[in-house]
Amino acid sequence: MTEHSPLHAQLYDEMVRRIRTGEWQQGERVPSEKSLVAEFGTSRGPVRQALAALRSEGMIVGGRGAPPRVHRTVPAQSFDTFMSFTEWARGLGFTPGQRVIEAGRRPATEEVARELRVSPDAPIIEIIRVRLLDEKPAMLERSIFPYEIGRRLLTADLDGGSIYQALRETGSLPVRARHVIDAIAAHPLEVEQLHIPQGTPLLRVRRLAFDAYGHVIETADDRYLPDMTSFVVENTAAHRVPLTRQATA
Amino acid sequence: MTEHSPLHAQLYDEMVRRIRTGEWQQGERVPSEKSLVAEFGTSRGPVRQALAALRSEGMIVGGRGAPPRVHRTVPAQSFDTFMSFTEWARGLGFTPGQRVIEAGRRPATEEVARELRVSPDAPIIEIIRVRLLDEKPAMLERSIFPYEIGRRLLTADLDGGSIYQALRETGSLPVRARHVIDAIAAHPLEVEQLHIPQGTPLLRVRRLAFDAYGHVIETADDRYLPDMTSFVVENTAAHRVPLTRQATA
Repeated sequence: MTEHSPLHAQLYDEMVRRIRTGEWQQGERVPSEKSLVAEFGTSRGPVRQALAALRSEGMIVGGRGAPPRVHRTVPAQSFDTFMSFTEWARGLGFTPGQRVIEAGRRPATEEVARELRVSPDAPIIEIIRVRLLDEKPAMLERSIFPYEIGRRLLTADLDGGSIYQALRETGSLPVRARHVIDAIAAHPLEVEQLHIPQGTPLLRVRRLAFDAYGHVIETADDRYLPDMTSFVVENTAAHRVPLTRQATA
Repeated sequence: MTEHSPLHAQLYDEMVRRIRTGEWQQGERVPSEKSLVAEFGTSRGPVRQALAALRSEGMIVGGRGAPPRVHRTVPAQSFDTFMSFTEWARGLGFTPGQRVIEAGRRPATEEVARELRVSPDAPIIEIIRVRLLDEKPAMLERSIFPYEIGRRLLTADLDGGSIYQALRETGSLPVRARHVIDAIAAHPLEVEQLHIPQGTPLLRVRRLAFDAYGHVIETADDRYLPDMTSFVVENTAAHRVPLTRQATA
């Protein structure tokens, strides 16, 4: 909110803040126009505009006789925040961390070659890391890159930050990704690195990332502890669904 | 495609059909403008318009020297298709099925009362069903409704079709839902009904559905066999993410 934005936009920002922080609680009645006019010391017009905007975005529901109520929606995530564990964790107020388990060159398996669209046995770069939220293991991340892209990552500060950021800096900019979400039992590497019993159910997200030319620049397999992370989707009859990854820790 | 839609829209529909059916394969070069003009017997304008539309929707990628290629995107799902197992399965060409395990009235637990926003011990209706794809168990579905809504479902044809459809027919129309996706180990009921070993990882989707007045009309817990179902998300730097549920069977 800036002093220079229109009055109705300032009121809107303030109301969104109240909904996000829970000052206006989920399911609660929205204060009447009259009381908002009195509280903000404005005319009726800007208050109505702000309320109409909240209603069109689904943050206020009800009508036709039923009193308007607060509906705390899931904020949609930007591409960058959805792609980057580091950015995502920071946005939630966690301290993201990582520990490199493996980072090196090996020949592509048949499956990886098909996914990256390189020839079988072509060299690829594989990076395996444990990702941490406030120093607790949250996810095991396996990322595989075509050699030309991945070799530049080996000299990046893998222990210190975001591969996604490093990728962007090398000019291999992902602009599109496809994620497949399912569940899988923990294998020995996860047992060891996430400190969990064999067979523990993990939330798996497999990802293919593409650059602007449609080239595959990464294939990844992330396995989350489900008591640390889930995915949240809100959909409505009127809008296409936004998706967000949510920490349940 | 209708005979009366503009020529460029007809060409667009035809190209989408080729991409969806795989006639134009993922990653393949898009035929040149020249060859499309020759094939369709039109002028260059409508062909260019159709290609531009496909490009803006991400179904054609590449440029700046790289040849344009086909990118088969995940189709976004409508609210109804995402909400209804029956509609979703039919859309994929599966025969959906169900077997009722339990359907009855009981007092709300504290957690359910909080979710449905009814008083603790208020009566609720719980319906537990195994959902089938081509007669194979795919998911265990537990749905809980406020008594006034759920009691009308008990007389619906639960063995024959969609609860979602029955809900719509009673006038309790869900228009918004919130889904939380994670993983969980199979409990005894899933072991028995899905024919799997104890502890098998399942993909869990918990759902709260709201009507137009913001009332909660359902709380549900669906547990999918991950080798039968996953969720797919495509996101891009330019667009908010659509989400779709995908059968991997």
